[in-house]
Amino acid sequence: MMGDIRIGIIGYGFMGHEHVKMLTELEGYRIVGVADIDKEQLKEVPEGIKRYASDEELINDPEIQVVLISANNNQHHGLVLQAAQAGKDIICEKPVAMSLKELDDMVKVTKECGVKFTVHHQRRLDPDYRTVKEIFDQGTLGNVFTIKSSLYGFNGNMHDWHVYIKEGGGMLYDWGVHLLDQILWMMPEAKITSIYADIRNVINFEVDDYFKILMRFDNHIVAEVELGTYYLTDKMHDKWFERHWFIGGNQGSAYVDGFEPEGKIVRTAGLLQNVGGTRTMTAAGPTRSFGPPPEGKILTEPVPQVHTKHRQYFENYRKAYVGEEEFLVKIPETRRVLALMDAVRESGRTGKSVEFEGGL
Amino acid sequence: MMGDIRIGIIGYGFMGHEHVKMLTELEGYRIVGVADIDKEQLKEVPEGIKRYASDEELINDPEIQVVLISANNNQHHGLVLQAAQAGKDIICEKPVAMSLKELDDMVKVTKECGVKFTVHHQRRLDPDYRTVKEIFDQGTLGNVFTIKSSLYGFNGNMHDWHVYIKEGGGMLYDWGVHLLDQILWMMPEAKITSIYADIRNVINFEVDDYFKILMRFDNHIVAEVELGTYYLTDKMHDKWFERHWFIGGNQGSAYVDGFEPEGKIVRTAGLLQNVGGTRTMTAAGPTRSFGPPPEGKILTEPVPQVHTKHRQYFENYRKAYVGEEEFLVKIPETRRVLALMDAVRESGRTGKSVEFEGGL
Repeated sequence: MMGDIRIGIIGYGFMGHEHVKMLTELEGYRIVGVADIDKEQLKEVPEGIKRYASDEELINDPEIQVVLISANNNQHHGLVLQAAQAGKDIICEKPVAMSLKELDDMVKVTKECGVKFTVHHQRRLDPDYRTVKEIFDQGTLGNVFTIKSSLYGFNGNMHDWHVYIKEGGGMLYDWGVHLLDQILWMMPEAKITSIYADIRNVINFEVDDYFKILMRFDNHIVAEVELGTYYLTDKMHDKWFERHWFIGGNQGSAYVDGFEPEGKIVRTAGLLQNVGGTRTMTAAGPTRSFGPPPEGKILTEPVPQVHTKHRQYFENYRKAYVGEEEFLVKIPETRRVLALMDAVRESGRTGKSVEFEGGL
Repeated sequence: MMGDIRIGIIGYGFMGHEHVKMLTELEGYRIVGVADIDKEQLKEVPEGIKRYASDEELINDPEIQVVLISANNNQHHGLVLQAAQAGKDIICEKPVAMSLKELDDMVKVTKECGVKFTVHHQRRLDPDYRTVKEIFDQGTLGNVFTIKSSLYGFNGNMHDWHVYIKEGGGMLYDWGVHLLDQILWMMPEAKITSIYADIRNVINFEVDDYFKILMRFDNHIVAEVELGTYYLTDKMHDKWFERHWFIGGNQGSAYVDGFEPEGKIVRTAGLLQNVGGTRTMTAAGPTRSFGPPPEGKILTEPVPQVHTKHRQYFENYRKAYVGEEEFLVKIPETRRVLALMDAVRESGRTGKSVEFEGGL
């Protein structure tokens, strides 16, 4: 259709396939062509879409307005520069860059070239995340002190180029960038004062496949992000091998499990009445302070219903492209995540906490 | 009976009651008497056991060999000194002291007086802990990288004098001392290099009722201890309001839930075969890397059966008292836990990691 955004996709791996599927279904987009250096991959590109054996060919096709980069992480920098210099607007897969230096270079060149530049952080639209964000925004848990975001897998290994450090592999780049972005975007005004992180390659030879990251914020929340690709139980009832959230405040807690989230807001029917100086002799459960709650003690409320889908990323892009909205993902936000990942790596390497955003 | 250990108990609160019950049932002990400043409490002391309205009276009763101190935490120091100077052997409730300085003083005086001195860390005998310790000792999880020990409650408040800072209240003193002792006693040779902790009073006015403590060891394990007295879900199937353990290695994981532990050792039928450079296009679950495992992927083994009971603490004491065994709990071990708690508080206060035992 006239007025459709004419898009070219570089990199026809897993995400390239996802993008072709998504954008084919969406109004307002026309996929002009796909580039991949792997000729076998290129054969899978659907009829009616051009196939380019080189990135240059795609970037220089005058029919293309927007270049969507879903190549290996270590190629983002070069491709963004090339596309910008050819006058193309750019959507880059996450992580936008391998380093702050690369990103700052990208920002400079895209500004000089006057092209639009944003990043595909579609997991801001994940229903599990948005459910938790909605609970947080509603403020009904009182003073929140802890937010825990976790993801566990049974595979151990990573896919394709993700097993190589030099190509930007590892779970911190792959999923960590999403998990950290979600936390930061949940409370964008709060500054992180310190970070403590453990990063491992448990099963993989080169790249990280486990991390636990604690972030202390100046709003008095400590957020934890934990991911393990080989972190096992047989507890399938709680969707173990999917997403998990726990958020705790002084007026209740909430948990959310699964990519299609299920959860509850949980409160108590009343705190233990206890006056210092009197003595409590009976243990209801195995101890005085812990054990199964009596009937009626635990009260639950449903978690809010959210209706977000990844397609909304591109619906926003289409509107933002013509100035009707702001882009969902702003480059300074992605820069903050990259800086945070640097601090996470430093903490993992030194075994000490790292001050961040002005320290304490 | 002749040869029974003649014991006097100071403090007839919750633990005092527990001790009377336990030692009445055990062979080899005779409870001579109980002291408490609260006359009403003292009325509950069973027939046939002396009642002392003051600690001095008990300590100076020549019939008593061993003084068992289960008074408020802030009274341990003074009572240990008094008892030692009266020539009594001493079992002190945990935490043995409010500070390292107090403990060092106790050690000096008990040595000078030539009395036996140990601490009631009975949770070294908790079945949940011993199950996990047995898994750890068996070494079948490969290289262990993470050990997580947690305990969550629904009450929020604490009992009796535990709500006052000056009397040694708070959950770090009450349960934290056990949870940390368990981790240290699981790998006594490993040194801690750094600690990062978050400590809160979420519901309580004065004292801590939530903590998360990360400990990085020189054996490459990061251990986490988390306790919340107001940390809620309605997931009763996993014994939420009881003990939880997770231990992860590169050849499997294990979990243990509950004071009467249930758990599994969990492995996979084979890691994902993945050669870098090939492309994996299909997502089995919601993503390529995460989602429900296919049938047969997750393999489980039973956790080892352990048969430990708190009474074994006193069975050991009886044998150690006559030189047949070593005391289960050695004072330098309790000193290490106190030093660790100091570092935990410092990290909580400063928001930074604290180096410990020689740092990195």
